[in-house]
This record gives sequence, C-alpha cells and structure tokens, in this order.
Amino acid sequence: MHRVEFLSLVKNYKVVFLDSYGVLKNHKGLIDGVPETIEHLRSRGTIVKILTNDASRSRQQQVDLFNSLGLNGLTTEHIITSGTLARLFLQDKRIKGKIGYLGTENAADYILHIDRDSVPISAIDLEDCDDIAAFVFLDDEGFDWNIDINKTINLLRMKNIPVVVANSDKLYPVSPRDVAVGTGGIAKLVENILNRKFIHFGKPDSQMFMFAYNQLLSTQDFSKHEILMVGDTLHTDILGGNKFGLDTALVLTGNTIESSVESLVTATGIIPDYICQSITQ
Amino acid sequence: MHRVEFLSLVKNYKVVFLDSYGVLKNHKGLIDGVPETIEHLRSRGTIVKILTNDASRSRQQQVDLFNSLGLNGLTTEHIITSGTLARLFLQDKRIKGKIGYLGTENAADYILHIDRDSVPISAIDLEDCDDIAAFVFLDDEGFDWNIDINKTINLLRMKNIPVVVANSDKLYPVSPRDVAVGTGGIAKLVENILNRKFIHFGKPDSQMFMFAYNQLLSTQDFSKHEILMVGDTLHTDILGGNKFGLDTALVLTGNTIESSVESLVTATGIIPDYICQSITQ
Amino acid sequence: MHRVEFLSLVKNYKVVFLDSYGVLKNHKGLIDGVPETIEHLRSRGTIVKILTNDASRSRQQQVDLFNSLGLNGLTTEHIITSGTLARLFLQDKRIKGKIGYLGTENAADYILHIDRDSVPISAIDLEDCDDIAAFVFLDDEGFDWNIDINKTINLLRMKNIPVVVANSDKLYPVSPRDVAVGTGGIAKLVENILNRKFIHFGKPDSQMFMFAYNQLLSTQDFSKHEILMVGDTLHTDILGGNKFGLDTALVLTGNTIESSVESLVTATGIIPDYICQSITQ
Amino acid sequence: MHRVEFLSLVKNYKVVFLDSYGVLKNHKGLIDGVPETIEHLRSRGTIVKILTNDASRSRQQQVDLFNSLGLNGLTTEHIITSGTLARLFLQDKRIKGKIGYLGTENAADYILHIDRDSVPISAIDLEDCDDIAAFVFLDDEGFDWNIDINKTINLLRMKNIPVVVANSDKLYPVSPRDVAVGTGGIAKLVENILNRKFIHFGKPDSQMFMFAYNQLLSTQDFSKHEILMVGDTLHTDILGGNKFGLDTALVLTGNTIESSVESLVTATGIIPDYICQSITQ
Repeated sequence: MHRVEFLSLVKNYKVVFLDSYGVLKNHKGLIDGVPETIEHLRSRGTIVKILTNDASRSRQQQVDLFNSLGLNGLTTEHIITSGTLARLFLQDKRIKGKIGYLGTENAADYILHIDRDSVPISAIDLEDCDDIAAFVFLDDEGFDWNIDINKTINLLRMKNIPVVVANSDKLYPVSPRDVAVGTGGIAKLVENILNRKFIHFGKPDSQMFMFAYNQLLSTQDFSKHEILMVGDTLHTDILGGNKFGLDTALVLTGNTIESSVESLVTATGIIPDYICQSITQ
Repeated sequence: MHRVEFLSLVKNYKVVFLDSYGVLKNHKGLIDGVPETIEHLRSRGTIVKILTNDASRSRQQQVDLFNSLGLNGLTTEHIITSGTLARLFLQDKRIKGKIGYLGTENAADYILHIDRDSVPISAIDLEDCDDIAAFVFLDDEGFDWNIDINKTINLLRMKNIPVVVANSDKLYPVSPRDVAVGTGGIAKLVENILNRKFIHFGKPDSQMFMFAYNQLLSTQDFSKHEILMVGDTLHTDILGGNKFGLDTALVLTGNTIESSVESLVTATGIIPDYICQSITQ
Repeated sequence: MHRVEFLSLVKNYKVVFLDSYGVLKNHKGLIDGVPETIEHLRSRGTIVKILTNDASRSRQQQVDLFNSLGLNGLTTEHIITSGTLARLFLQDKRIKGKIGYLGTENAADYILHIDRDSVPISAIDLEDCDDIAAFVFLDDEGFDWNIDINKTINLLRMKNIPVVVANSDKLYPVSPRDVAVGTGGIAKLVENILNRKFIHFGKPDSQMFMFAYNQLLSTQDFSKHEILMVGDTLHTDILGGNKFGLDTALVLTGNTIESSVESLVTATGIIPDYICQSITQ
Repeated sequence: MHRVEFLSLVKNYKVVFLDSYGVLKNHKGLIDGVPETIEHLRSRGTIVKILTNDASRSRQQQVDLFNSLGLNGLTTEHIITSGTLARLFLQDKRIKGKIGYLGTENAADYILHIDRDSVPISAIDLEDCDDIAAFVFLDDEGFDWNIDINKTINLLRMKNIPVVVANSDKLYPVSPRDVAVGTGGIAKLVENILNRKFIHFGKPDSQMFMFAYNQLLSTQDFSKHEILMVGDTLHTDILGGNKFGLDTALVLTGNTIESSVESLVTATGIIPDYICQSITQ
C-alpha cells in the first residue's frame, strides 16, 4: 500500500478502469480537474473505461449526463453499468413471461423493454400473477415504499422466480452530510425477510470487470498487469478489482477520507495497492 | 418433542405464558374456542400471562381490543408487551433530552410521553437536533417510508445516541396470504446500513420472560418447572422460552403449520418440548 | 459518555458489577492496585459482584484462583459465571439421558455431573448414540480439534437435541500480542456449518445480569439506578449492561484501548455512560 | 424448473460444465454409468469441462485420480479447479515476499511453488514474519487444528496482507452419513473472528465459469445458451451457473436428494432450469 500521485502512477498502465461517483464526480458535479485528467489520459493513449454501479440510466443517458456536466468525448463504449449487465443477463436467460420490477419507468425502459413486457410492482395483481416470470430491483425511486416493498415481498413469497438486483449498492451519498438507501439496500431488506439470495449485479462481483476486460480483449491482447482499477470505495471498487486480479488504487475524493483510511483498511482487510489523493494530481 | 393435547398438558402447570397472535387470535379475530379455554384455565386456577411482541398499543388498549373481540376478563396485569419493556428501559435510563421516534403518535403517547418530550422523525430538523438524546423504532406505521427511513439513517449517522427497537418482529401476517414488514424489519435495514446494533425488545430476548416471572414471584414462589410457554413461532416464542428455562409448547394455529413443522424444527434446531394442534383442544 | 475517575464515580452506586478479565486481571495476573480498590469498595459498603464469561472453572475454583493471585476475601457468592447459568439451565431442563460435551473433564465435572452422566465427544459412538439427550460446548480445550469438531458436527446433524454454549466469547487474549479462539468461536463455526442456532450463555445476554440482580433482591430492595456495570468490552459488558438498564462504565485496561475507543464507540453504536482509565484511579 | 432426463436434455447443448463430487463420483468412487455417459458425450462431440471446488490436488493429480477410478481420457485441459484460479491470482499479483499457508505440502507445491517461497503456518515465527507477504487457506488437512488455526489468526491480526481462500466449500461429505469442515469453513471461522473478508475462489463466484468460458472462446465462438452447467449443490453449482447466465441442471446424486429438493429450492430461491435424476439416464 503505497501513497503515490495518480498522474505519475498511471504512466505504468495501458488501461484504467474508473469508478464514477467519488472519482469523477460528486454531489456538486464534476470534481475539479477531472476533464483535464481525462484529456491527459486520452492524449497519452491510455484506454479509459468507467465502471459504475448504476441502473437508473442507460449508457447513452450516462454519456449525456457527463456531457451536460462538462466532461465531453465519452461514448457508450466507455461506460459499463451494473444495469447493462442485468439487462444482458435477462436477455440471456430468455425468460418466458412478464418481468415485474421495482423502480422507475425510465430504468425499466432501457433494461427490460427489449423484447418483452415489463410490469411495475404497483400494476401487478397478486390474485392473478401467473404470467410474472422474473423480478428485478431496478432503482430506489419510482414507487411507493409504504406499499410496494410489502407487495414485492408477498409476490416473491408466492412465486419462485429468478430475482435480479440491478445495482447492489446499499446506500449512496446525496449531499456532503446525507445518504440514501440504494436499490441494494432495499433488496437486502427483502432477502433478509424472505431468507433468500437474489442475483446481484455490480462491483465487487466479477461480472463488470469481466465484461470490460472481454471488451478490451476483443480489440487487442492485454494482460491484467496493464490495467489499473481506481475507486473511492473499499468494499466495491478495491475488493472487486483485487479479486479480479487487477492492481488497485484508492482515491480520497469520495466515500473514503484521509482521516480514516488507514483504520478502515486495517479493519476490513481490503488492501489497495496504491492510495492517491485524487485522479487530478 | 411430544404431540399432546393442550388441555391435558396444561394440567401439569400452575402458570401458562401465551403468545397473542397465532395463539389467541388471527387476522379474522379470536380463534374459535379460545374464550372457553381461557375460562377453563381461570376456573382451574391456572395463572395466565400474555406475552406479545407489540408496541403499537398500550396494555389498556390491548385489554380493550380483546374485550371488543369477545375475550373478557383480562386486565393490564395479564398482558406484557415489548412496548412495555421499551418504556421501562427508557424510564430507567433517565435520558436527558428529547426522544426521536419512528411510528404512530398513539404509540409515542403511551411509550414515550411519561415525563419528557418526544418528536416524530418527520418533525426533527437535522440542522438543529442537538437536543435529541435517544431514538426509538416504535411501529411500521405513522410515517412516510419514502422519506422518513432515510431521514432516520441520516440522524443516526450524525448522532451517537441510544437506539431502542420496541418490537423486534421482522414481519407480521396481515391476511392468510400476505405479510408486512414489521418494526424489527425496518430497524434491521437501518442496522444493516449503519453497521450498528440497536437495543431490541421482545421475544426471544429474555427481558419479557424475566418481567413476567418477576411479576409472578412478587406474589408467591414459583419454580420455572411450573410454567409453560405457548407460542406459534419457533424463533421467538419457543427459542425464548427454551432459553429462559421454561417448558415450551408449539401450537399450529399461526406461523407454523402442520405440513412443515417437522422440517422446520430440524432445520432450525429450535425444539419445543411439546407440539399441540391448538390451545382449544 | 463522560470521562471520569472510577473511584469518584463509584460513590454514586450501592452495587458494582465487574467483569473479570481486562478489569481485575490480565495475562500477567492481577492489575496493579486492584486489591486496594476492592478493599476500598468493601470498606465503603459497596456490594461487588464479578460477572464473567467463563465455563472452565467452578465458582470455588475462581475464588481459589483470585486468592492465589493475591485478591482475597471473595466467596462464591461474589462470582457469577456463564458456566453457572448453563448448569442451572441444564438442571431446570430435566434432560432425560446423557449429556455430550466438548471441553475439559474439569468443566464437565462441575457443570454437568450434578445428577446425570456426561460423555466427552471423543467417547461418543456415532453408531450408537440414542441416549445422548443434550450437548454442551464447555471449553476450547480438553479435546482434539482435528477430530472432535467434525465429530460434533456429525453428531448434531443426526440428533435434534438441545445444544448449549456455556461461554459465548468468540476469542480471548492469551498474551499482549496473541488471542485464541474461545468456546463461542467454535460453537459459531458449528452453527454456521449446520445453519442452526444454539442456546448461548454469557454477556451480553441478559441472564447473567438477571441472576445477579435477583441475588441482590433476595436480600434487600435495589433499583437498577443503584448498580454500575464495569467492563472492558463494548460487545459484551457494555451492550449487556445497557440492555439490562444499568449504568455502564468502560475501562481501558483490557480489550478496548485509549487510541481507538472513540472510533469503536462510533462504529458500533454501543455507548457506555462513562469511560474510566481503570478501576484503580 | 422441469424434470427431464439428462441424456435427452444434453442434446440441446454444445458444451457441458460438470461438477465433480456428487455428479461424477461420490465417497465410494465413480457413480455407476458415468464413464459411459462421458464416452457418449465425447462420441456426440459435446465438449466437457469439469469445474470443481478443490485445491488439494493439481490438475494432473485430478486426471490421475479419475484414471485410477476408471474414468479415462481426461486431460488437464478438461479440469478447472478453484486451486488453479488461486494459483493464477497469486501469480498475477506478483507478490514480493513469502506466502504463508494452511494446508498440505502437496497443495502448496502445485499452487505456490511457482517462482517463490512458501511457508506452512507451523514454520512461521510470529516474532519475525516481516517477509510474509500473502497468506493462503489451501486445505483442511496438513496442519494441527489445535495450534495452527490460532496461530493463523494471530499472524493475520499483525499483518495486513492479501489473504486467499483456495476452496470456499464450507463442508464436504466423507461418507453417506458424515461430513467434514472444509477449507472454506475454516477460513469463515477466521474471517468471523477477525471481522475481515478474504478473497475466495470457487463456485458460486464467477471466476471459474469465466475461466472455462474464456478457454472455450479461445478455440471457437460459443454463446452462453450453448452451455449447460450441471451440479448437485444449489448454493455453488446452480447459483453460480445461473448468475453467469448459463442454463443449469441439478442432479440428485449428491448433496441434494429427491425428498427435499422442492422445499430447498423454495427456501433458498435458487432455481435450476432443470432437475435430472443423474447424468447417467
């Protein structure tokens, strides 16, 4: 675990995988200096992929959002979201029937409407739900928590169907002071009540790393030594990167802060190869 | 684990502790034959105590509810709720400041308004909450889940104060088919997000058994052999009764049903001394 | 959470409950000044009870050990161990058959040999074990871990019998640098493998506090306000004391040390009413 | 979840991934008819890969063992073990220093002796262990549980180094009646005691599926629809296969038996696409 400057560290790698929230942006918008860093990497020929636990926006919507914040030049090819992976999984599974979901219509639109019908939990009739063949936790918004969480539990008590969690983050920051329960937190509540395990997508699980790595390999050969995973969260970015066999760098511009980084690393046993102040230095 | 008739088993005991929901009543009202059983126990001189994980009603309100359902003759002395214990705990702790809560005003009224101010989470100002000295999870109703669960999490991230869960049941039945997340389920979500442990009241923890036992001892001497704990739920009634050293009887009129009782006992390792069809036979 | 001197704090209480290891003694023997503190409490008329998670020695053996270390004047009445409670539980349960155990013969002797046969796991024949009616995790010594842990698992897979953990501590210190897996850690491994829950004795569960409190009440009336629980461990002494409704003081002579006490209290949400350097100041 | 005959189901797939224990062999040796099934698949041109949570033998030793049991014609190319993946991970990580381990010398030999020194926990001097740069849980044999588990815990308390679990199975069958704690069970005990998370290899994690899939892709293009994952265990084979996006078939010749399969699937929510009696029908 070495303290280094990111801009000097990154010279040793052909590829960087970057987390989004806490690395590129925060609740106020882009972190100062990020467009310059991305431009710098581009000019050096370093390949950049953004790996984010997010299922609320399509990849194109992510690109548009980065553009509106002032980070230009990204395309959907640069972005891999946990929602993308949930979408591919559901396509692969060739589910016969409708897919119930908890979340926004927008998320349902890009994740589920491929070639089949999807139904929000609020529109499912528990007396007549034989046609529901899978269920997805898409987002923490777009439904009434007072009613729809219990309704989801009762649906899943009745029906033994594949259940997918499209973003496994338990909470996310909404301001410097406040957090909110994320999709993964709601799914965890339901798993805990039902004593069941759903299929989770998102870091630290390997699928997103594998997807990004396979994308790379489809163009040219890369060894894992040539890739640096950069993130602000030990339990997702660093644990996942370590497990996939990548070198990992923790930045201190998000969830993990200078004053507690040493004790957190010791307490969790999740050890980044490098610690950098930010990606802008 | 013996299959016996309750009415013949109970002759061996001077005292019976009864769970309420699933033993005395269900979603439709009193279970058929329960008033006759209670009258029979009374006529034989068997002491009855009702031990229930509930914080939504005061003991007097519980008595009134039983009366309205057709079970008469109970007094507050017969009823011990997890809310009672949370109330005593908060009195004992002599907390200096206001008590925040998640739940209904009715529950706050009888549990918290003893000699201090209580404030629902919706009325707490996170910018100005120095005076909140404790927090209580009272009920799963009386607040907006969409807003108030996150607000509770943010309050408890800022303030390191005693947190009490007045009913640790994770879910409860609302119809033969449906359940709802209970106070304990919401508290568990928050504990999980914050990675902290709150102070839980209710079976299977020993306090309710201890409280009932000490009430008994204040009038005359009883050995634990003379008490039978009766409930419909392995994880609360039977585990708690076993641990407290009482003989335990599982009834099949609630959460645990005939077709799965053997496999559940094997799977959980929670073994009632007796299994009875109901308390009415 | 106030920083205070123990000797001045204790003047406000009629009774002190003391943890043993980390409060009275450590791996080298008695903590300096402890005999003087105990003598001082005695001279002031403060009632002292020692509450310890230990099942390896009988209460008389505990007294003898304290004597040999130089702390005199204690009797079995002063000492409550988790083993005592397991013993009472097994007596109360009137188990019909033999009791299997994992631990030393000495522990089996004082905990189990009351009025029945006990059998170490090594002497149980898995082909012929119909007569084993309960099982107890007594100690982390006295058996061969390589063989007897697996044998215990296989016994408990076959037999659905009450299982008791006589000391729920997961680990304990053996030197300033080293710890060892305790009885509770081994039991946890087996629970984890079998996906079952055993009956645990020891802090933070309420039974030991209840036992000590009832002992007090049998001589004269005490309110919980008049009792101070003192310990070195947040998860056992302080959590248990808080939950039972006692005032609690954390000392820094054992598991919890000055440099990490603030962050541990914040991280766990287990809040002692007081923090004292040691019981000797 | 359809009941089908394996030999008719497998016609729909170009590739089958097979678990080893409980599918190909059991405690007595090869399951009757397995060599014929493998020969049949070979003659049809179906590609077979064996995916096994095992780190005790090298791939060559696995081949030799199958040969000695009577299943011929396998090569190391057919076999992927969790040990293989742990070995690749450690190579990738380019660890500078010695690797401590818990397990047999044989396992250390093929997993660790690549280009560096490895040291069994029994030979590590806790007073002088600065050169230990990683630690691996290799096997449940080859060490003294009474001493070496505690020593491992104390080493890992001192040293914040990458820790790898080369086989995450918590238990394994040793006879029709008996099981034994596996490497993953011991690692779980240590994780539980230390409150840390190690890097686990083996099903249900995706790496083994990914490794096998990438091996396939290196020769020709395959879609995931063309692969069937076959196993006897819901939590490893089926959960892992489902998550990776493969069709899955549960066989009833190992951990999961006919009488409880329906209730287990319901209880866990892990749903195989197919259930087959065995791979031999």
